[in-house]
Amino acid sequence: MAQESKPALGWAARDASGLLSPYSFSRRAQKEDDVTIKVLFCGICHTDLHVAKNEWGNAMYPVVPGHEIVGVVTGVGRGVRSFKAGDTVGVGSFIGSCRACESCAKGYENNCPALLLTCNGVDYDGATTQGGFADVLVVNQDYVLRVPEGLPPAGAAPLLCAGVTVYSPMVQYGLNAPGMRLGVVGLGGLGHMAVKFGKAFGITVTVISSSPRKRSEAVERLGVDAFLVSHDAEEMKAAAGTMDGIVDTVSAGHPLLPLLELLKPMGQMVLVGVPTEPMVLPASAIVTGGKRLAGSGVGSVRDCQAMLDFAGEHGIAADVEVVKMEYVNTAMERLERNDVRYRFVIDVAGSIGCAAV
Amino acid sequence: MAQESKPALGWAARDASGLLSPYSFSRRAQKEDDVTIKVLFCGICHTDLHVAKNEWGNAMYPVVPGHEIVGVVTGVGRGVRSFKAGDTVGVGSFIGSCRACESCAKGYENNCPALLLTCNGVDYDGATTQGGFADVLVVNQDYVLRVPEGLPPAGAAPLLCAGVTVYSPMVQYGLNAPGMRLGVVGLGGLGHMAVKFGKAFGITVTVISSSPRKRSEAVERLGVDAFLVSHDAEEMKAAAGTMDGIVDTVSAGHPLLPLLELLKPMGQMVLVGVPTEPMVLPASAIVTGGKRLAGSGVGSVRDCQAMLDFAGEHGIAADVEVVKMEYVNTAMERLERNDVRYRFVIDVAGSIGCAAV
Repeated sequence: MAQESKPALGWAARDASGLLSPYSFSRRAQKEDDVTIKVLFCGICHTDLHVAKNEWGNAMYPVVPGHEIVGVVTGVGRGVRSFKAGDTVGVGSFIGSCRACESCAKGYENNCPALLLTCNGVDYDGATTQGGFADVLVVNQDYVLRVPEGLPPAGAAPLLCAGVTVYSPMVQYGLNAPGMRLGVVGLGGLGHMAVKFGKAFGITVTVISSSPRKRSEAVERLGVDAFLVSHDAEEMKAAAGTMDGIVDTVSAGHPLLPLLELLKPMGQMVLVGVPTEPMVLPASAIVTGGKRLAGSGVGSVRDCQAMLDFAGEHGIAADVEVVKMEYVNTAMERLERNDVRYRFVIDVAGSIGCAAV
Repeated sequence: MAQESKPALGWAARDASGLLSPYSFSRRAQKEDDVTIKVLFCGICHTDLHVAKNEWGNAMYPVVPGHEIVGVVTGVGRGVRSFKAGDTVGVGSFIGSCRACESCAKGYENNCPALLLTCNGVDYDGATTQGGFADVLVVNQDYVLRVPEGLPPAGAAPLLCAGVTVYSPMVQYGLNAPGMRLGVVGLGGLGHMAVKFGKAFGITVTVISSSPRKRSEAVERLGVDAFLVSHDAEEMKAAAGTMDGIVDTVSAGHPLLPLLELLKPMGQMVLVGVPTEPMVLPASAIVTGGKRLAGSGVGSVRDCQAMLDFAGEHGIAADVEVVKMEYVNTAMERLERNDVRYRFVIDVAGSIGCAAV
């Protein structure tokens, strides 16, 4: 029996104001390899803000944001083996890749040039993809993740983007060996995840932040081992040459040199934030001491599943402020001024129906 | 019988004019772990130019440059086991390290914060070190390299700095696997060595240069597989996303972005040149595709010996223009305007005596 396309209700931005409002659309008919998912929770990431407001100039309105999705499987195609109705699953920032390029062949499909984004992407059939601020999703099984049972679904949602974005380079670049000394720059959605993973890896974590007022929170509640105020030259100097690695999560413009100076010889720094303005890099800051500066976006599906399994074993979830769908515009405003500790997550299943007009 | 300090004759710069002239000084008495070396040949590196002219503001005049040294052992201390009189040996850019720090413990003493440079350094006894533009050297055995028999000593001299500087990161970062595609930016002293090692590793080498006139030389004589003119936007665009790695040897200021775009996803670029002005790095250029940018100075003693052994097996030496000691000031001038193919090497043993005054 041929499946029919599925009516969906989401909240979409319709112009560069970025204001979201209810939007009725349809999901594709579930294909043989597809999983149909009832969305439970969806995190709000900075990228959603950029897309909704067309800050990258590529918004295809109306656009339904959301790519930190936890839901429950409601149906699967005949070719689906790993999921069944009732499973708790996750969907991250992409839902397709070309499966043919070198990156796909190596299992790093996150670097596929034809990566299909979960929202504001163009699907292989030409349709615009719509994200997780919606009641239902239909996703190819290869891009669906298992969410471990023990994790709270709301707190697990940000793992699908913020979590894997920091976990993936930490593991890939060997910044997870017990005893290592890691710096985490910025204590926001990504930074607080890096701290949690770092502590679970058994490494010494120092937070570097421009906000001295985050010190007690970082040390007392998140258990970081040290806290540096980035503009305190003396504090930074005293820590020079002490770190094996740094994960820099800051998306606002900031100087690289004082951070690179914190690294030991052969230390590595990973940028996971993308400041709009180009950064300034004195070559001597990496040539001296043989240091490395890497960039990293989202992780692969394999990394993401490994991260979720690790999070399940160690009871790691994001610290979230759960909000109703109708609060989303206020949440986006607050996110824009970093007024959230540490991630907004929308209770989609619990509120999207009520808000329907 | 206590050894006495040894009279030495070198050519030294005495002020920021950088002009070199004969200079009589003395080497320390050979200690138990020391090797005494009669200098045969010494390459001229850009660093020598910077030091002679005090361009880094740290010259300790009079300063005898030179750190690409090949010579013959004339004497050894009682504790020296690996070398004997008559051996052909090399000395590179450093002749000591603290032996206690994390870098030294790991065998990367080249990153030791107390690295003792071969010239213009302060020895552990307080003496200023003087380099290889001199007839004799006394060096601790742990910083002396074996030069394979088959290599021409003049062509081997530049291996001790230019050679290891490119070889070390190529091996360390896995840019030496057969079948890889490597870009080499700049075809000078370092660049032509990177090409030779690349071809010997069995990898595909593309030279990226600002000088179209180097194309035939690169392709026909050095056997590179492709040649890109860095300011030819079309040529560069056609090569986008094709390289596993890039070794950037250019010390003049230049844009990073067009080079990073040549890399495949997860590609790595290594800076071995140090432009004076800070470089401009758009974070998105490395975050997209998960790319890495490393810096690398000289290699370790272990890397340097491995490089020399590899060069010996594959008959790799630098292409050099051998000059007499009295030509050194002209050579330095020509080096400053990159008028050399590809390295000046001074025939120290064959000409320093004649020039003595």
